[in-house]
Order: sequence, then structure tokens, then C-alpha cells
Amino acid sequence: MPPRTPIPLIKMDPKKAPWEQELKPHNRWHPDIPPVAEVQTGDLFRVETIDWTGGQIRDDDSAEDIKHVDLTRCHYLSGPIRVKDAEGVPAQPGDLLVVELCNLGPLPGDEWGYTGTFDRDNGGGFLTDHFPEATKAIWYFDGIYASSRHIPGVRFAGLIHPGLIGTAPSPELLQIWNDRERALVEAGEGATTLGGVLHTRPLALLPEPKGAMLGALDPEGPAWSRVAGEAARTIPGRENGGNCDIKNLSRGCKVYFPVFVEGANLSMGDMHFSQGDGEVSFCGAIEMSGFLEIKCEILRGGMEQYLTPMGPTKLHVQPLFEIGPLEPRYSEWLVFEGISVDETGKQHYLDATVAYKRAVLAAIDYLAKFGYTKRQIYLLLSCCPCEGRLSGIVDVPNAVATLAIPIAIFDQDVRPKAGGPPVGPRLITRGDVAVSTYDGTKPRTINMCMCGAAH
Amino acid sequence: MPPRTPIPLIKMDPKKAPWEQELKPHNRWHPDIPPVAEVQTGDLFRVETIDWTGGQIRDDDSAEDIKHVDLTRCHYLSGPIRVKDAEGVPAQPGDLLVVELCNLGPLPGDEWGYTGTFDRDNGGGFLTDHFPEATKAIWYFDGIYASSRHIPGVRFAGLIHPGLIGTAPSPELLQIWNDRERALVEAGEGATTLGGVLHTRPLALLPEPKGAMLGALDPEGPAWSRVAGEAARTIPGRENGGNCDIKNLSRGCKVYFPVFVEGANLSMGDMHFSQGDGEVSFCGAIEMSGFLEIKCEILRGGMEQYLTPMGPTKLHVQPLFEIGPLEPRYSEWLVFEGISVDETGKQHYLDATVAYKRAVLAAIDYLAKFGYTKRQIYLLLSCCPCEGRLSGIVDVPNAVATLAIPIAIFDQDVRPKAGGPPVGPRLITRGDVAVSTYDGTKPRTINMCMCGAAH
Amino acid sequence: MPPRTPIPLIKMDPKKAPWEQELKPHNRWHPDIPPVAEVQTGDLFRVETIDWTGGQIRDDDSAEDIKHVDLTRCHYLSGPIRVKDAEGVPAQPGDLLVVELCNLGPLPGDEWGYTGTFDRDNGGGFLTDHFPEATKAIWYFDGIYASSRHIPGVRFAGLIHPGLIGTAPSPELLQIWNDRERALVEAGEGATTLGGVLHTRPLALLPEPKGAMLGALDPEGPAWSRVAGEAARTIPGRENGGNCDIKNLSRGCKVYFPVFVEGANLSMGDMHFSQGDGEVSFCGAIEMSGFLEIKCEILRGGMEQYLTPMGPTKLHVQPLFEIGPLEPRYSEWLVFEGISVDETGKQHYLDATVAYKRAVLAAIDYLAKFGYTKRQIYLLLSCCPCEGRLSGIVDVPNAVATLAIPIAIFDQDVRPKAGGPPVGPRLITRGDVAVSTYDGTKPRTINMCMCGAAH
Amino acid sequence: MPPRTPIPLIKMDPKKAPWEQELKPHNRWHPDIPPVAEVQTGDLFRVETIDWTGGQIRDDDSAEDIKHVDLTRCHYLSGPIRVKDAEGVPAQPGDLLVVELCNLGPLPGDEWGYTGTFDRDNGGGFLTDHFPEATKAIWYFDGIYASSRHIPGVRFAGLIHPGLIGTAPSPELLQIWNDRERALVEAGEGATTLGGVLHTRPLALLPEPKGAMLGALDPEGPAWSRVAGEAARTIPGRENGGNCDIKNLSRGCKVYFPVFVEGANLSMGDMHFSQGDGEVSFCGAIEMSGFLEIKCEILRGGMEQYLTPMGPTKLHVQPLFEIGPLEPRYSEWLVFEGISVDETGKQHYLDATVAYKRAVLAAIDYLAKFGYTKRQIYLLLSCCPCEGRLSGIVDVPNAVATLAIPIAIFDQDVRPKAGGPPVGPRLITRGDVAVSTYDGTKPRTINMCMCGAAH
Repeated sequence: MPPRTPIPLIKMDPKKAPWEQELKPHNRWHPDIPPVAEVQTGDLFRVETIDWTGGQIRDDDSAEDIKHVDLTRCHYLSGPIRVKDAEGVPAQPGDLLVVELCNLGPLPGDEWGYTGTFDRDNGGGFLTDHFPEATKAIWYFDGIYASSRHIPGVRFAGLIHPGLIGTAPSPELLQIWNDRERALVEAGEGATTLGGVLHTRPLALLPEPKGAMLGALDPEGPAWSRVAGEAARTIPGRENGGNCDIKNLSRGCKVYFPVFVEGANLSMGDMHFSQGDGEVSFCGAIEMSGFLEIKCEILRGGMEQYLTPMGPTKLHVQPLFEIGPLEPRYSEWLVFEGISVDETGKQHYLDATVAYKRAVLAAIDYLAKFGYTKRQIYLLLSCCPCEGRLSGIVDVPNAVATLAIPIAIFDQDVRPKAGGPPVGPRLITRGDVAVSTYDGTKPRTINMCMCGAAH
Repeated sequence: MPPRTPIPLIKMDPKKAPWEQELKPHNRWHPDIPPVAEVQTGDLFRVETIDWTGGQIRDDDSAEDIKHVDLTRCHYLSGPIRVKDAEGVPAQPGDLLVVELCNLGPLPGDEWGYTGTFDRDNGGGFLTDHFPEATKAIWYFDGIYASSRHIPGVRFAGLIHPGLIGTAPSPELLQIWNDRERALVEAGEGATTLGGVLHTRPLALLPEPKGAMLGALDPEGPAWSRVAGEAARTIPGRENGGNCDIKNLSRGCKVYFPVFVEGANLSMGDMHFSQGDGEVSFCGAIEMSGFLEIKCEILRGGMEQYLTPMGPTKLHVQPLFEIGPLEPRYSEWLVFEGISVDETGKQHYLDATVAYKRAVLAAIDYLAKFGYTKRQIYLLLSCCPCEGRLSGIVDVPNAVATLAIPIAIFDQDVRPKAGGPPVGPRLITRGDVAVSTYDGTKPRTINMCMCGAAH
Repeated sequence: MPPRTPIPLIKMDPKKAPWEQELKPHNRWHPDIPPVAEVQTGDLFRVETIDWTGGQIRDDDSAEDIKHVDLTRCHYLSGPIRVKDAEGVPAQPGDLLVVELCNLGPLPGDEWGYTGTFDRDNGGGFLTDHFPEATKAIWYFDGIYASSRHIPGVRFAGLIHPGLIGTAPSPELLQIWNDRERALVEAGEGATTLGGVLHTRPLALLPEPKGAMLGALDPEGPAWSRVAGEAARTIPGRENGGNCDIKNLSRGCKVYFPVFVEGANLSMGDMHFSQGDGEVSFCGAIEMSGFLEIKCEILRGGMEQYLTPMGPTKLHVQPLFEIGPLEPRYSEWLVFEGISVDETGKQHYLDATVAYKRAVLAAIDYLAKFGYTKRQIYLLLSCCPCEGRLSGIVDVPNAVATLAIPIAIFDQDVRPKAGGPPVGPRLITRGDVAVSTYDGTKPRTINMCMCGAAH
Repeated sequence: MPPRTPIPLIKMDPKKAPWEQELKPHNRWHPDIPPVAEVQTGDLFRVETIDWTGGQIRDDDSAEDIKHVDLTRCHYLSGPIRVKDAEGVPAQPGDLLVVELCNLGPLPGDEWGYTGTFDRDNGGGFLTDHFPEATKAIWYFDGIYASSRHIPGVRFAGLIHPGLIGTAPSPELLQIWNDRERALVEAGEGATTLGGVLHTRPLALLPEPKGAMLGALDPEGPAWSRVAGEAARTIPGRENGGNCDIKNLSRGCKVYFPVFVEGANLSMGDMHFSQGDGEVSFCGAIEMSGFLEIKCEILRGGMEQYLTPMGPTKLHVQPLFEIGPLEPRYSEWLVFEGISVDETGKQHYLDATVAYKRAVLAAIDYLAKFGYTKRQIYLLLSCCPCEGRLSGIVDVPNAVATLAIPIAIFDQDVRPKAGGPPVGPRLITRGDVAVSTYDGTKPRTINMCMCGAAH
């Protein structure tokens, strides 16, 4: 008989700093970060994680902590976990590691989360040219539901998931990451596809010893400097999974990860109580500390059997996953469209990112008519269970993206109707999120057609 | 009492050419194309449409018709329909036109459809650099289900929708379209965000009198040449809706269109029996002739009340819509990820189009292991009810797109499992789609990591 | 290549009487009713049906037609259809007939339906002791939606299905039916389990030549009198399927019928635009004329392989079916409970019928607080897509039944909230259904606790 | 700011006996059982519960504990909880108590459950005449999923819910319960509607001091004997909610309970990891210890505003509830039908209980063809998320009940197909549940048609 209670593999105390934890988390990817725990296939084990910034953000009504967040100190990951089979043979490069997410939740005693946008000069967000200030909303959880004193009038069931989960890269894969991201940064904005449309900067985050935490690797030891200088940042998703921020990696989901190093060295963190497709505000899910109960299997040789690499090397692969049967069911949706014409009226060619930006902007303007501030809606669309779709990607020159929002999360009917949105006493205003000043000098994107209206 | 049977407003005979129809369709957008019919708000009326190419594609086993399709002759739209209220006052610019799609279906006696990819030198598709040949699959309908002799082993419930529906542009809006699209074409590939990654050409389709059909406008009359020379092509979705190819505009859906000209002048066509998000193969839904049963309402002044323009003018708006309660329900999904690194390994900055291309390529390679050709899967992913999501759009430098495919549409279990995909006698091959040769000279994108494998 | 358009197998004209139809329907079950059509497995064919009473009910505002309906003249079934395989071998007793319901809909030109309760002395209904009068509501269809001038303020998507579909009985099975139903009638109310609780009478409908219509059997021929004297009535569902009134036998569903006679002799009718579980008002779905597009397969020997008879003979079997993926999706439900204590306060033992009666009564009383008459809600709960569940069937002495109603079908919020249901100007009354007088002498069931209130 | 962590209101230790718990549970209903805790409306609080038999059943492979279970010692309920509003005013008779089930789960460290059937002479079950032996299956939980070593080859997502939750009865209501249940017992089997069809005995469980546990009421005090002699047993659901065993009272659900005593005195227990509609095997859900996180509101005067009593007194009411958005989604179902003809072939009149018994029997016989024992399927249908529907309740003389089973819970395809169910090496047998002998003398119901087959 297997044990009937999840094995408590990694514990975290959300009241302590990352470096005070018993099994120290890590915030970089590198093959030489040593495993802190080991599991066998078929074990049901429990991993606790701290929030992605390691406690930098507080449950209060000021956005100063968001404004001054230190992004070199993230994401704090629990692991690596070494996986072996029942015979004790570890996962091997070329295998697939099957990770079943059996249960997920906030850490008991720490049932809250935050959503924010970063200051434009310190990370930004999808719409940072429109919303350059740092903002914050705090969420409390009533079991499956989240609500916020900063965005009253909405409540929704969370689709809890790890924003970040993945296997360790091999040295070769790490080299590929560092090379291609450095090339992007060095080429600069002018060489990017979207440099003039999206304004989150830097273009990529290169290895940075400052703020690095390497788990069980001895900070005083001989390897630390080398590893910290090479280790990849955790911000983007990559071939190993990583920070994919896929909201459907939720309870009951099964993920198939490629294995690049012996033991697979699985790490995870950045738990989200809920997130919208795209996580548009960047610090954009309901970020929390949390736990995962997990089972692993190994498909020997599965990487070659199932994943066809596409690119210069055999390492250019992608994970895949199966969605579980327990998503929240909403039946009525309001959907906003966007096409790949930017805010200046300029036509882009089949650019889904531009199209999605337009859909999100349209949704914000629309919903703000119901008593919310635009900043509230921006955060809401980042963390509620909305769906972002690539609806049309072939009809030159316009990509069409859509953003679908479940109507039932609002305590009022937000559908269009004769007579227009509520006005006068029917319009209930609803406070605001916490906001900091933007002290930088970059220009805010202006809605040109509204300028004339001001005259 | 209202009449209890839909008013047969516009009839089409799929066996006749577009110009032989009683109420002639049109294949360009222009405010001067005269209405062919008029309805009152609250009427339930029925509009028939012919397939988007007006009968150029045949139910046979050759892709030659796809290869040589004349794209100046599309999309054939039924309408315009002038909408007035119960007092006889027509819709006015600034109103919202509410269009409820009460019922949709194929034309009786013509229950079939086609999916294809165009030749790279005649339209291409999302993956035309990988699949430059014209291909075709024919689908027959068993009521709600579609199946194809060219892609045996799959069957799915359709989510019937009009690929194209929208209101007529005003002269000002038309001018905006023509200006911005011309600017794109004139700037050329080098100035585009995605010119080096997507290879569908031309970048945009500018007004073109050749092939133009202008409905009830007299081809011998004085206005024809001017209108045909100015009228916008129907390929992209725009501020008026148009060819948005949104698969969820299905039975029970309610769309809110901005009104730009008196009467709204609603047109529609390009009926799809089913489509996947993105419609990746371009001729990519299950294209068919079909009918729509529709009800309209007018929200007076609703455009200003509900839609905030974003851009240089007040006309830069977007439609929105509500999804109905009758989508096919699938509960198990296999999901593929893509990041914004292209096939050469080059890093792009938050480009969702690149990321989605990678997700689609990964899905094709994966599913082809189950006895299908890659061309079959390419067409299948274009027309089955798969979902394309913008999962992460803020984690520099990688956008993450996902493609979710319902498992139940296959007659075999396509999930990964120990032992790998079927081989030997367990692997059932399943014919192929109709294929033409690609006679052009543009290079096919090579999967570099597989080249070495050939040596 | 198979034909791509459904074979028009049986046509019906809803404007003509049953006996004026080209292929005459039948309204009794008997093995000697000859097939009127033949199909081959794999054919997609179309069957039209007239409404179950054969046109006795009119689209008007009087319930007199319902009150005086002749129940010896129902249900009018299209068929029998003889099914053979590709080699021409007909279905054999012991096979399973697989019937896929590919598409369903109202008859074009006849898009309306009716819901009613019968007079207590002429058929009654589940709550006939509370509602003895005949009532009627007329429904019109906007594509997938139904709405009624007699029950304003509700609108819902239909789940179209045949109330009645089944294979012909063998002589042995017919004998079993007639014997057991006659035994029930002869034993009388006192011998029944529920005689004192349910008041629909007679207890069963025995063979009755009056009103009988036997399809292609010559009314002047020698067999007619014998067959009409033996043939089973169509009211109940039985081993052959029949009038099961299962609302989920809808588009995309696959039913497995036992075959009792050579050729299977499949018949169908009683099309419903929508129905609630239980069809409580008896004439209780949205009754309409309609069409079915169907495909058949034969599982040779499947009856023995898959169905275990339970009872005195090998013929005591039950059909089974698979639900399709296209049900309307509602996500929010209001649920009423009932236990097996009757209206007098008497305790019954695990009686789900009593419990369901209580749940339905509770739902009627509740919803009537929102401006509807109880008669309107009674008809609504009979025909909207509500779900009746056997929640608990073991906790002596109470069975618990629940009735779940989708909230989104109402144009007001019917959930409980502080302050109570609408009163004064907020309470909108909504007319009534058509009602006839009850001229009989049977006592209406009194809600005893409300009597005192009247004093 | 409200506290962000649930208030730990009632704690239970599943390793201790009921009488060793700090806040003692109770296993009877009586107005004089004193509250053990108090909450304010709006509080989020956590209640732990022990399993319904208070630890009588063990995690082993013998059914002896089930066979000899003491049913006078159940269900152990946590509470009563007194509810007051923010001003300190307690809930009053005539109010509605709104209970939101925010989160539910097994008790940490005790993640297992059991399903069983009782011996026919000690409680029985819905099919006890077919399955008189006590049986047991043990389930372990992998997060949202349950699986059992006693029923290999199935795994499903749980819909966790309290089988039993309700408010305390007033003295008048308690009297009504005791009177009507005593009348049933005294009238005896012959007077029941279903005495000859269902064989669970006794017909009802009358007050019984033996085994009674009355929470905080002093067992040595003067009131104990009186209260224990009057207090109602917890087996059935009643006007106060109670043991309704409604599987949809799950996460996110909101229940509206009538209040009969000051403070409402809410109690709960009998947590189920999963249950099928009907809970047919009686000890039939996956029974476990568990926790609930709950919020209460009071609707003042809501009982009169929203609940219409039906019966001799104003106390004859029923709770209602709203279903939450987080049910497991299954899209493919296999459905079995039953009509109200019993196993002897006798016709009953519109009896849904008989019809459901036939549907369950049909499902057991069918699924047992796939390598399971009938006992395994009986337990499975009692605890997996299957749906029992009252499909037709008006078509004399047959009620039609249906039982829908989600196909995806099996690791094999259980749909009918050509060639029949697996045989020979394709048929995988799967052990059995734990079974005890039935030592009683009551006759097992024989499937008459199979007897002849033995000759």
C-alpha cells in the first residue's frame, strides 16, 4: 500500500525571507544548482513555495513596494527535485518527465495575494505606455473565491496554478538561451519586431549575479560566482517550461517536460490563485505563496518519441500538457476584438501582439464605464479568468485577437443595453487600486482622438 | 403576433455563379454599394450565402482549383441589408447595431465544405514557408458532425459561424483603411514587424477593380469604376467587423456593430462549418455555403455610449459580442506550447505571432506521429474546434502561445504514454489530402536540427 | 463517395391531417405494422414527423383544444423504417440497432410549438390534483431560442429531441406489455404504489381500436381489426425505447436499441423543441412537428453481448445511449429540494416520485413570487432545460429529489436576496397562459397550512 | 480589514473517538443540544468533521467492520454553531440562513475514504435484495482524484460535499418528524408504497437513546435522558436540510436554510469526497473526515419571503441552493434507462424509485462485462460522479429514470462496439472489493430469465 498522505517534501515559511528557509529556494536556472530533494515515480509529494518576489510585497494600501521591487530577486523557486524510478534509476536526458498537478492551494495561514503593475522604469507591463505608474491590489480568498478591497464589486473562482514550473537546462541549452537573448539585447530596440509598440524594458534580462540565489549551492564556495554569472534569469518561459504563466496548468493537469539533465531537476514557484490569459499587468496574476501536491512519472526516451525539435539543435523542443476536468465553468462571456492597427493608426502586418493590445485596451475602456477606474480594470483583466484568443492570424494585414470576459464575475450586468451604461445615481464608483507616481520621463501614449475632445 | 417563420430575405443558389444570383452578392466594402434588402428591428429573417470564393472550389480529389484560385474574386457577401426601427427610422451613424445570430447552417442540398492551403505564390497561409503547396480536403456533414475522406479518423461537432459579417464603412473610414494599408505595402517587408517570419504575401490587398463585384451597383453605370477603384478588399477584419474569422460567433451569439452609414448596411458571408482559432491554413475553416437566421436591434447612440475609440479618429473602434450557450463541450484537451523564438533559433521580443507559429508547428509534428501526414494535420488544426491562446505576453523576451486540441475528435488515443506512439502494425496510415505542386522558387523553411539527422 | 445530402426518406406536411400524409404515420406499436421505408447502414437519411397529436392543437389563445384533445389519437409516428446492412441483410432479433441523431429541428415553415396540461378528467399531469384545468402556452422559435407570449420574460436555448423513438416489439414482447399493464389496471388504484399520491388517470392505457392508425396497414384489410385490438398504446416508454421523453436524446446523441423483429422497424415522432426532466405537465415539452437526420449501424448479436435482461424473459431489456457534445451550457443553477413526505404531511418510504412532486411544487411556489402565475411556472418547468435528480434514494425513510433550474433563462435575477422578492412597482406581472375551466368533481389538493391564513 | 485566514472554529482529530474530541460532536437532532461555537455573519470560518461513523471503519481489506457497524452511532456532526449578525442579534425563526461553502477537503493527514454496502440485516442498501452482503472499498486521494485498490482501473475527480448539513429543528418540527416516521413504522411494510420493491429495513429509524451522543449536553445532567429519547435520528434529509446527500452541495455552493430556533444552530458532517446521485449503496459516497470553510449571511424574514410551506403546518418547507461554478466537467456520458417494471416483470404506476432501481441494475450488468465484478460496479456507481435523472414522470404507467456515467473515469473504452465487450486476453479482470458473508435468511432477488439459462 502506498502512503495515503502526501509526502511533505519541501516546506516554506512565508513569514521568513528566502535565505532563511530550511531548503533554500533558487531564482536562477543552471544545471549546477544541486537538488534539494529526491522523489520516486508514483510518490505523491507536497512542495511549498513562497511568492515570486520572496516577500517584497506587503498586504497594505500603498504601491511603493511594487514601485521599488527588486526584479533581480525573483522568481524564488522550490527545488530542484531529482526524480528517479522505482528501481532507483534517475530520469535521463531524452526522457519525458510527466508531472501531474494533483492539488494546489495557498499556504495555510497565508491566504492572500497581490496583483500589480510595475513602474515603467522598473519592469513595466503590457500597457506600460498607457499606465506607467506602479499600482497594486490585494486579494483575500474565501476558499475558491477571490475578492479585493481595491477592486470592489467583482468576485471569481480561482484557477490555481504554478506560473513557473520546469526542468533544469543542460549546459548546452543554457548556452543557447544566453546567446540568443544577448543577441536580442545587443541588437537593440530597432532590430525587434515590436520595439515601437510594446514598451516593457529591458528587452531581455541577461545573467546577473546581483540578487542571485542558487539554492543549496554554497555562496562561499568556488562555483558560486561562475554559476551566478552564467545562470539564466527566470522571467521568460523557455524550452524547459519555466515561467510560461499558463493559467490552465491547474488542478488535475498533467504536464510533459523534456529532461535535459540527469534526475530532471524539477523546480517550481510563482503560484497564482488566478490569472487571465496573457497576465497583462506583468505582476499580473494573483501572486501568492502556495503548495503543490504532485506525482511524477518518467517516459523513457519520450522526448525523442513525442517531441520533434524545431530549430538549430535537438534541444529546441516545447513541453505539452493535458488539461484537467476541474476548470471553473462560466457560460456567458463578453468578448472584445482587437486588430493589428496600433494606437497611432498605423497598420501592422499580422501582428497578434498588437491585436491583443488593442483588445485589452478596448475592454478597459468599456468596463471603466461601469464605475471602475481604468487601472482597476487593467489589474482585473490580468488576474481574472478571462481568455485571450488568437482568433485570426492569416487575413492580411490584420491579425484578430479576442479577449473574453466571464460576465458572472461582476455584481452588475455589464452587457450593452438601450439607454447606455449607468449614469447619475445608478453609477456606483468603487474606489481605486493603490497607485504610486511615475517619476520617469518616458511619454505616455495618448489616445489621439480624445485630445480634440479636451479642447 | 409576429410571424412565426423566418422571413426569407436573401436567397442564394449554390449551383449558380455569383453574378447569376437574384440578389447579387458583393465582394468589396464601399458605402456606395446599395442595399438589396431592408429589415425592421425585431424581425427574424433568413439570409443565404454562397461560399467565399463563389464556387471556384469543387468537391473532388485535386487541389488544382485551390492552386489557381482567383483571390480578386472574394469574399462574396450577401447584402447590404438596411436596418430600420419599428417607426421606420433607419440606423444612424453613431448607433450600435445588435445582431443576434439565432440559427446558422449549411444550405440545404449543399451540405459539404472544403479546407485548403493556398500556393505560396498565390496567397499562402500561416505556415506557407513550411507548406508551400496548395492542398485541399473535402468535408461532408452528418448533421452536427463533419468528417473528410481526405483526413480519415477524425470527426467533430461544428461550431457554425459566419467568417465575415459587418457594417458598411463610411467614406472617411474607407479612406483610413486604404491609406494605412497602402502605407504598409509601400513601406515593404523590411518595415514590417514580421516580414521575415511570416511569408504570406502580399502584405495587404489594396483596392482592385479586377474581379470586383459590387452587388446591386450597375456595372454599366457611371459610379462603378470609381467605387471599384476605391472599395476595400474583404480579406482582413477591421473596425466594421468584417472578416474576423472568430469561431465563437456561432448560434445564439449577439454581436454589437458600430454603425457608420445610414441604415447600417449589414453584409455577411464566408460561412464556416467549423474553424480552429487562427484559421491557420488561410482557406482554413470548413468553407461552405450557408444560411443565417438573424434578428437586429438598434442601440441609439450606443457607439459613443459603449465604444471608446482608440486612435487618430472617432472611427477607430472595435465591435464586441456575447457568446451563446450552445458551444460544443469538450472536456479533455492536449495543449502545445510555443515561445517567440523562430525556427532559426532567433529570439524575438514578446511576439505572439511567432509563438503561435511555434505552437502550431509543434502540434503538427506531434500528431503526425499517429499515422497522419503533416499536411493533414495542418488542415485539421485550421478547421477543428481547437483553441489558440495568448497565454503569456509580458515575460520578456518570450511571449507564450498555446494551442489546445480536443482529444475526443480522434478515433485513437493521442496522449503520450509509455512505449511511445504506435509503430508497426499498430500504426494506421490514413491517406492524404489532395496536393498540388509548388512551382515557385521561394525556399522552404528547413528544420535545421533534422538536416544533420539525414547524413 | 457517399451522397453528401441527407436522403429525404419520409416527408410530412404539418398542414395536413395524419391520414392525408403520403406515407401514413402510425399511433400504435405492433409487429405487423408494415415498414414504409428502408435504409441501409451508413445512410444519412431525413425523417419528418408531425406533432404528437396530429394537429389537434392550434396556435391560438384558448385552451379548449387541449381540454378536448382526443388521446386515443396519439402519438403519430413516422415509420416503421426497415434497416439492412450493406450486404442487404436486415437487422435481426438479438442485434443492437445504433441510431445516431445527427441533426434535429422544427419543420421549415412550421417553427412553433405548444406546452399544455390536460384536464384532470382527460389525462391530467404530474400535479393534476393541484392544477386540474387544461392550460396551454404557445412558443415561437428564434433559431435556437424559444419564447412565448403566454410566459413573457423567459427565453432559453432548446435541446431538440424526439420524445418517442423505438423499435417494433415482437409478438411475445407485445404480449408481455399488454398483460402487465392490464394487470395493473385490473388491480386498480388500491393496488398501486402511488395511487393516492399521483392522480393522473387511467393508470394505464390499454389497446384501443378507436383512434388507432396503423400506417401502411390497410384499414379495410383482414388484419386491421386484430392488430388494432392488440396493438400497444404509445404513451409509456418500454423495453423498445418508445416514449421515454429523455431530453438528452439530442443532436449528436447515439442510441442503442434492442432489435425484436427482422428489420428492426424503427419509428419515431413526438418531437420536442425543449423539455425539462420529467416533463411534468404531461403535454409538457414544447411539442412540435420536426425533422430528424439519422444514421444507423447494426451491432450483430449486440443485444446479448451488451444488454443483460432482468426479469422473467430475455426480452426484459433496456436501451442505452451516449450523450453528444452539444448540450446548452448553463453555469448557474437554482436548486429546489423535495423529500418523500406528501402534501398531507404523510411520510412515504423512499419514494422518489413523491419527493420529486414536492421539489416541483416548491419551485412553483418560489418562482411565482417573481410575477408569474403558478400555472405559468408549472408549464415552464415542464419545458425549459431544468434537471430533475434522484439525489438520495437510501436514507430511510426519505428519498431526496432535486430540481435544478438555469438562472440565465429569466430576464430578472431570481435568486434570494435581502429584502425579499420584488414588491410594488418592482414586481412585474406577466399575463397568463391560456386556461380552460375544470368541470369535473374531483377535489383539488389543498395546501393545508395556507387555509388558516385565509381566515 | 477582515482577517485573511479562516477562523479555526471547530477542530477534530480523526485519530480520536467522537467522545474524545475537544468540542464533542452530536449524532441526533434536537433543539436542546447546546451550541458549541458562535460566528458572526461575514466571518470565514473552518469546521472540521470526523467521518459519519466516527471511526468505526478501518483502512483494511476486510468488510467485517462494515458488517458489524453500529448504526445507532451516526452521523457524527460538528456543531451546533450559533449565528448572529454584526450587531450581535442572532438568527431568528423565520429567517433564512445563507451558508456559502467556500472550500471543502479531506482532513490533512487523513486523506482516504471508504465506500460500502451494509449487510441486509443491518441497514442494507438500494439493491440489498440483490447484494445482501456487506462489502467495502478503500479510496486514496491524489489531490482532486480518487482511486481504490479494490476497484482498479477507475479514477475520477471528486466533487467534495457535506452529505449532511442543516439547522436545528424547533420542538414543533421535531414532533412532526417523530410522529410521521412512527406512523410509517407502525403501519408496517404493507402500508408503504414501496415495501415490496425496496428491502432496506427498518422503514425508518425512530429515536433511540442507545448510541446517542448529544454534543455539549451533559450526559450526567438532568436533560440527557429526555433529549436522547426525543431526538431525531440523522439518517434522512428533512425540512432542515440534514442528510440530503446532494452531491452538488460542493465548493462555491450557497445553501438557503430555514431557521427554526434562535441562532439557527447549524451542524454538519458526513463529508464525502465524491458521490453519485442516489448514493445507492447507502454507505455509498466516499466517506471521509474533512473540513469546511464557510461564510454565513442571514436573510431576515426570508423564510416567509421565499419559502412557501406545503403541508399541514408553516414548518413544512424545503431548503434551496445555488450550484457553484467549479464542478468537474465531463463531456461524454453513457446513459442507462430504467422503467417502472420491477424484476418480476410487474408493472408499477409511475414509480421513479422502481425505474431508477432498474437503471442501476442495467448499468451494473453492462459494466460488469468489462472485467469488473458486479459488487465493484455497485460501489462505483454509488460514489463516482454519475447523474441520476427523473427523465419521464407522466407517461402512464411507466416512469423513466436514467443513470448517466462519465466515460472518462474508466481506463478502457466502455462504449458498445462491433465485436462485443472484451473477451479472452483482452478482458482484464480487476480483483474485487472486500466482502463479508450474508448470514441472514432473506431471499436474494433472482434474475428469473437467467435461471433457465443455467439448465
